[in-house]
Amino acid sequence: MDAQSSQALRSLILSRSVGALGTLRDGAPYVSMVLCVPSRDLSGFLIHISRLAHHTQNMLTDPRVSLMIVASEQEHEDPQALPRVSIQGVAEEIPSASREFKQAAEAYLARFPQATTYLALGDFSFFRIVPHTIRFVAGFGRAFSVTPRQLKDIALGGT
Amino acid sequence: MDAQSSQALRSLILSRSVGALGTLRDGAPYVSMVLCVPSRDLSGFLIHISRLAHHTQNMLTDPRVSLMIVASEQEHEDPQALPRVSIQGVAEEIPSASREFKQAAEAYLARFPQATTYLALGDFSFFRIVPHTIRFVAGFGRAFSVTPRQLKDIALGGT
Repeated sequence: MDAQSSQALRSLILSRSVGALGTLRDGAPYVSMVLCVPSRDLSGFLIHISRLAHHTQNMLTDPRVSLMIVASEQEHEDPQALPRVSIQGVAEEIPSASREFKQAAEAYLARFPQATTYLALGDFSFFRIVPHTIRFVAGFGRAFSVTPRQLKDIALGGT
Repeated sequence: MDAQSSQALRSLILSRSVGALGTLRDGAPYVSMVLCVPSRDLSGFLIHISRLAHHTQNMLTDPRVSLMIVASEQEHEDPQALPRVSIQGVAEEIPSASREFKQAAEAYLARFPQATTYLALGDFSFFRIVPHTIRFVAGFGRAFSVTPRQLKDIALGGT
């Protein structure tokens, strides 16, 4: 992938907080909204979700997930050409008593200070989405397959 | 569902053109971006996609899909409370020589005039997503299950 597209992928991931989460519900696709916080090296995407929500029940049954992030729409621009990234991976729950949970809560609150309310609710859990397959559409006809290793290099400022 | 939420669902669907499509790729979820045009009675959502794209190959293998539409983000508002609708349904290809295809092309171009370019490309097809299960999140803690029949009523201005 060229340097410009790598830069575009990095800024897409770092600039957006709303993602579309794909899970399996009785073997069929189920897409719902999540807020996500990428780790600094882009090796994982943190989400904080309610146990009452369908997507949480789905992931506890089958951890295979997909996460898509789309750039903001701009007036007068062709939405078909919007940059977006489709990630496939697995969801891992972060145990609530772990040191990792504390780090997750800090990272999440740094991004979403208003989430303090949800953190206080007992039924919310942190999951990390670990990508194995990444497809980046930089614009019309410009699609790239990206490996998790390449994504880490991009996080560190490489191409 | 109360009248205000019905109205919110209708305006969400009618105001947004970008959707998140969930398909199955080797049995795992795969989320990608599509532009969609709802039919007037909200009984189906038209998408126009390339045969070269992963999601098209996925749907031709297994027609079970999900489509999610999220409201635009607003500055200073909690994104966790964004209205969104998650649809589960099946994707049906519209045969290219049919009368329905002509109607689909007209409806699609009325919404996306710039799509003329893609319509001229031979590898694009129209699919209709027919919902069977609909989940509308109107805001934090306000989630509703909606039947296709209720969605039609909402389309016609009812609740």
